Amino acid sequence: MSLAISQRGQDMPVSPFRKLAPFAEAAKQQGKKVYHLNIGQPDIATPPSLLEAVRQADIPVLAYSHGAGTDSYRRKLAGYYHRAGIEVTTDEILVTTAGSEAILFTLLTCLNPGDELVVPEPFYGTYTAFAIAAGVKIVAITATIEDGFALPPLAAFEQVITPRTRAILLCNPSNPTGHVYTRSELEDLLGLCQRHNLYLLSDEAYREYCYDGARATSALNLPGGEEHVVVMDTISKRYSACGARVGSLVTRNRTVFQAAFRFAQMRISPPGLGMLLGEAAAELPESYFDENRAEYQARRDLTVRRLQAMPGVQCPVPGGAFYVMAHLPVDDAELFGEWLLSSFSYENQTLMLSPASGFYQTPALGRQQVRLAYVLNLHDLEAALTCLEQALLEYPGRTLAPQVLEVAEAHV
Amino acid sequence: MSLAISQRGQDMPVSPFRKLAPFAEAAKQQGKKVYHLNIGQPDIATPPSLLEAVRQADIPVLAYSHGAGTDSYRRKLAGYYHRAGIEVTTDEILVTTAGSEAILFTLLTCLNPGDELVVPEPFYGTYTAFAIAAGVKIVAITATIEDGFALPPLAAFEQVITPRTRAILLCNPSNPTGHVYTRSELEDLLGLCQRHNLYLLSDEAYREYCYDGARATSALNLPGGEEHVVVMDTISKRYSACGARVGSLVTRNRTVFQAAFRFAQMRISPPGLGMLLGEAAAELPESYFDENRAEYQARRDLTVRRLQAMPGVQCPVPGGAFYVMAHLPVDDAELFGEWLLSSFSYENQTLMLSPASGFYQTPALGRQQVRLAYVLNLHDLEAALTCLEQALLEYPGRTLAPQVLEVAEAHV
Repeated sequence: MSLAISQRGQDMPVSPFRKLAPFAEAAKQQGKKVYHLNIGQPDIATPPSLLEAVRQADIPVLAYSHGAGTDSYRRKLAGYYHRAGIEVTTDEILVTTAGSEAILFTLLTCLNPGDELVVPEPFYGTYTAFAIAAGVKIVAITATIEDGFALPPLAAFEQVITPRTRAILLCNPSNPTGHVYTRSELEDLLGLCQRHNLYLLSDEAYREYCYDGARATSALNLPGGEEHVVVMDTISKRYSACGARVGSLVTRNRTVFQAAFRFAQMRISPPGLGMLLGEAAAELPESYFDENRAEYQARRDLTVRRLQAMPGVQCPVPGGAFYVMAHLPVDDAELFGEWLLSSFSYENQTLMLSPASGFYQTPALGRQQVRLAYVLNLHDLEAALTCLEQALLEYPGRTLAPQVLEVAEAHV
Repeated sequence: MSLAISQRGQDMPVSPFRKLAPFAEAAKQQGKKVYHLNIGQPDIATPPSLLEAVRQADIPVLAYSHGAGTDSYRRKLAGYYHRAGIEVTTDEILVTTAGSEAILFTLLTCLNPGDELVVPEPFYGTYTAFAIAAGVKIVAITATIEDGFALPPLAAFEQVITPRTRAILLCNPSNPTGHVYTRSELEDLLGLCQRHNLYLLSDEAYREYCYDGARATSALNLPGGEEHVVVMDTISKRYSACGARVGSLVTRNRTVFQAAFRFAQMRISPPGLGMLLGEAAAELPESYFDENRAEYQARRDLTVRRLQAMPGVQCPVPGGAFYVMAHLPVDDAELFGEWLLSSFSYENQTLMLSPASGFYQTPALGRQQVRLAYVLNLHDLEAALTCLEQALLEYPGRTLAPQVLEVAEAHV
């Protein structure tokens, strides 16, 4: 008789971000330079004032804080939301251990084990892990690359709603697609939630990073959403502070808030040093976002321009976040990703991509797609994209999609 | 039709530590000094070298770390465990967001929803919250104050084991009782786990704080425990660093480790600044523990001596941690705790206690008991205990236990 682990422990997937990691390690050991377009870890410096705030703090005893976060950080966060055009009070803000914990507490609070959570795919692969931890079933609705990953028609949502459906989850701006949901898409979705008595869960980690003058609409700003909306948020991407592990759960639904707070009391308090850093972050001027937004937009423009110029590559122009989803002329992007690391190099360089299959729940979808995170400076990004272009020319498994074949034939 | 929250959200209790908080607030607003003996928040300074390590760190980008923690911190932790007499390799150490997350990941990994976890009561009240979050049922075995909260007889464990029993959970040294389980108690328990194919989960947050020359036995040092033992650990109490939110899950069971690691990947990484602090903590010399141990032992001695001198108060001598559980000559320690804050003062001072009912699962048990955390300097502790003595003389709801009544009568 041997000790078994739980079913959820068995079901819990290996992070899709880790699958290619051993190949990247091997490539580096061979002396290749590997450009990392695979992970949403910003390269932009953490603003020095954030770390300085931690350095300057006088901390005789690094003590527990209130379970919902320190008063001073919650007040500053309310100020940040105000400047972002979102009016919430401190008692609608629960400070969490990064966006991860906001997601976990939200699922634990809003859904029973066995309940269904509707999520447009492709979606942030880690939602699957949280759903397994919370015993929740994700029902995916497919958004297509042809439609630029816009919200699928409401009818598609209506079709999958069952008595077990409790919530719809969006990431806006979206990881992995970069799609920024329009106000009208969100209003439609809230209407659906109202008719079917569902929560609208909105992951807004990339709020500030929208391009071409667009602004993301927070679900908190949808009239009539008070009882339905829970926003999951984090300072990770906003301020290049992923390691701080500070996020927030924001809702005007008091019952949800109070239950989420009881889950928060379970772990006593969020990270204290991270909250000090977060206080300084909440006081950064708008110009901080303007600068980063300009930088990310230049990178997005470069990435899209280069990708669209590669034969057989299809890629919608993402309006936000720092990702591009692209269709590549390969049968299996995971094999291509391995090949890039194990068998390819261009001037002793190669790149690491995220195969998109990790972002789809429906089997076999996204097999020819990849997600590229433009978290390199323009110079390195250019070099990485040149590697990709070269690789696609050399790849033995190259398959041109029909419409691209026609173009190619026309060029012959 | 209104939106409901989940059953587990409804079941999740308000932290027992928070129930008296509004009364304490009110007392402070009346200008009373409130001695906090209610919470295990050490008053001893966080060692300056820990915060200095954070200040000195050069952090251009505060990035995600490996999901199991940084390599350098895991190596240093292995060194700490070695010096603590526990031989583990870095790949047996998963860095967690404090002990809380180690507990959550352990329950999610080792038990299915509906499975049973046997825990001697009184136990750390928050285990109940983790069990609800993980859908696990706690089955309590009562340890008694008369036995000094020693491990209940194995027969009591045998009696409650069912096909759904998956694990036994101990806190050693114990919060809330201060009991240090003997090696022989632990060996017996491991034998039981071996016979019934159970996990032995050991919360060892207070490892270093044992008095009178005693040493706590880590469950990791029980021969034959390799597959059974999971240790949940934290730097919170050890280094007065509760706000850092850094802990660890340690096990030699590879299947458990790998599943726990997949849960850890879900939240990407533990707090980065906290790990920097943890690295410095892992390098503190043994003299750090010697000093704190001496201080805590002096406080324990004072607390026990004063309590035992109060008529009607019963209290075993705790061997470790920084808690004393005491039986008070009151009908309901929760009402007494309220009365202390709302209606009593001695030289404009009062104290806040933890009513022990929050540490018992069996209804009505512990109603006459309180937990006192000796996390005040000797001077304040003396003053707080004088308040308690005075309060017990004045309390209108005072009830003397029979054996104490006899003594009192003999004195008449």
